[in-house]
Amino acid sequence: MRGHVLALSGGVGGAKLAAGLAAILAPERLTIAVNTGDDFEHLGLTICPDIDSVTYALAGLNDTERGWGVAGETWQAMAMLRDLGEADWFNLGDRDLGTHLARSWRLRAGESLSDVTSRLTRSLGIGPAVVPMSDAPVRTQVETSEGWLDFQRYFVAEQCRPVAKAIRFDGTPGAVPSPGLAEALARPDLAAIVLCPSNPFLSVDPILAVDGVRAALESRQVPLVAVSPLVGGKSLKGPLGKLLGELGLENSNRAIVDHYRGLIDHLIIDRSDAVDAEGLRAASVSVTVTGTVMHAAEDRERLAREALSAARIELEGHDAR
Amino acid sequence: MRGHVLALSGGVGGAKLAAGLAAILAPERLTIAVNTGDDFEHLGLTICPDIDSVTYALAGLNDTERGWGVAGETWQAMAMLRDLGEADWFNLGDRDLGTHLARSWRLRAGESLSDVTSRLTRSLGIGPAVVPMSDAPVRTQVETSEGWLDFQRYFVAEQCRPVAKAIRFDGTPGAVPSPGLAEALARPDLAAIVLCPSNPFLSVDPILAVDGVRAALESRQVPLVAVSPLVGGKSLKGPLGKLLGELGLENSNRAIVDHYRGLIDHLIIDRSDAVDAEGLRAASVSVTVTGTVMHAAEDRERLAREALSAARIELEGHDAR
Repeated sequence: MRGHVLALSGGVGGAKLAAGLAAILAPERLTIAVNTGDDFEHLGLTICPDIDSVTYALAGLNDTERGWGVAGETWQAMAMLRDLGEADWFNLGDRDLGTHLARSWRLRAGESLSDVTSRLTRSLGIGPAVVPMSDAPVRTQVETSEGWLDFQRYFVAEQCRPVAKAIRFDGTPGAVPSPGLAEALARPDLAAIVLCPSNPFLSVDPILAVDGVRAALESRQVPLVAVSPLVGGKSLKGPLGKLLGELGLENSNRAIVDHYRGLIDHLIIDRSDAVDAEGLRAASVSVTVTGTVMHAAEDRERLAREALSAARIELEGHDAR
Repeated sequence: MRGHVLALSGGVGGAKLAAGLAAILAPERLTIAVNTGDDFEHLGLTICPDIDSVTYALAGLNDTERGWGVAGETWQAMAMLRDLGEADWFNLGDRDLGTHLARSWRLRAGESLSDVTSRLTRSLGIGPAVVPMSDAPVRTQVETSEGWLDFQRYFVAEQCRPVAKAIRFDGTPGAVPSPGLAEALARPDLAAIVLCPSNPFLSVDPILAVDGVRAALESRQVPLVAVSPLVGGKSLKGPLGKLLGELGLENSNRAIVDHYRGLIDHLIIDRSDAVDAEGLRAASVSVTVTGTVMHAAEDRERLAREALSAARIELEGHDAR
């Protein structure tokens, strides 16, 4: 069928699939709702790492070598901040800083995160709607042997070294979906939901924790296809493999499916995890085994096609640009 | 005599003499009080151009080719801001942005401009006290044929093209001197005051407009030596020559002395304006004729020595570093 596609995404990995979807769907057919649990305030700036990853990937500005941030980035402001004795644990690129500045001052002037995100993505020529999961601040916290840590403190400053015991999303319940996410969930022409290959615990769970989102997905009338973030039992980036162990779960797609029980109809897994497939089918989830590592645009678009195909979404000539 | 020296400075030209004074005086003998009338809020940042010019000059970070800002500057954040559709009339260098960010977030966290300035200058290894004229916001406004313009709008966006009719300093009266300026003015060992070669109307008048500063200078017990910002009847940078004409004043040091009547004891003028000297002496101001253009560190230090000599300040071995 045709109709609208809602993608739920975290940062880098999710952003790649989101860019693949954006490359093959007409812009008006796609809404990308992005995790904001990683957002934080730093040096007076509101930094939204996952929105920025998605934005840079869709605008073709992302650094594909380093795997995060903007291509052609420089670090001059950071060097000055260091000379001035300011905190340097979070790397702020100069180009990236332009984004943080534009966002922060507009938020402070009273614009919602949705308004700002729409403005910034449109300025960069991005067609699909990129929306935050919520305009209310949600802040992921990780309980570790060192106590509760702000997500970026855990993720960047501590490089995920402390053992994680629990995760919570400050601000939920009570954070309502952004207008764009609410609208996409309620669209009569909604035809599929795609869970991008993002960390289930740190990137997707915050979206599910937004008021009504989990219930909306549970009562969906359309296919929900997830792309597993595991490749060979680990994530390509980030702490998913380590986290699964710390949370007492096995390093396999069975843990992913168990975590998303009742939420997903189909899981796309990587060839290196093909051994997981049979067990998943036994758990009433249909499975595609394919290559899920996205090195180049072709990989992103092929995987996006496979996800839409699994969701029985038709592409027409003017979609597949 | 020995004792403490208070320098009053605006931006680029003043900053050079301030750096000269800093190079020859023991750090504890010098306070540099800086104009903040040029300060403004931009993209959520509090930008203090004159404090930054003085800071960069004293730290040896200033760009001597371009004549303003930081050496080795890049403009990546600015390019991103432009791509995002944000205002680009004020050039924000990447290294400079580090300073604006550090200052802005600390101000927002409740630190005074004095505290922030002290912290930033100490971090850069600057010995003398660099203090804002006031911790209260003072904002220079220029009345032009286009109405009252914020200073940076007049100076940067309009490049001083509109004809100036009047100048006012919003926030005065009512802005008290910063603790550092008040303390320097009240020091029993205050031995001289130096007016750096800054625009009298736009850079020094705001300092004089701070509550009690003009009165303190008028009742001073110590020599006040000014270095004229005119070279050949014009300023090296900025709109002083144009402004003198628009305000109905002559393009000579006579206008400077008339403007500072009762405030200065001695004026240092450039050789190219030597013809002005006799008239100034007739106005009861003693005069030094010398080279006032400061290309290199030697020029700054020589001119600083001449200013201190005119103020009968002694330098000892450990001063002249």
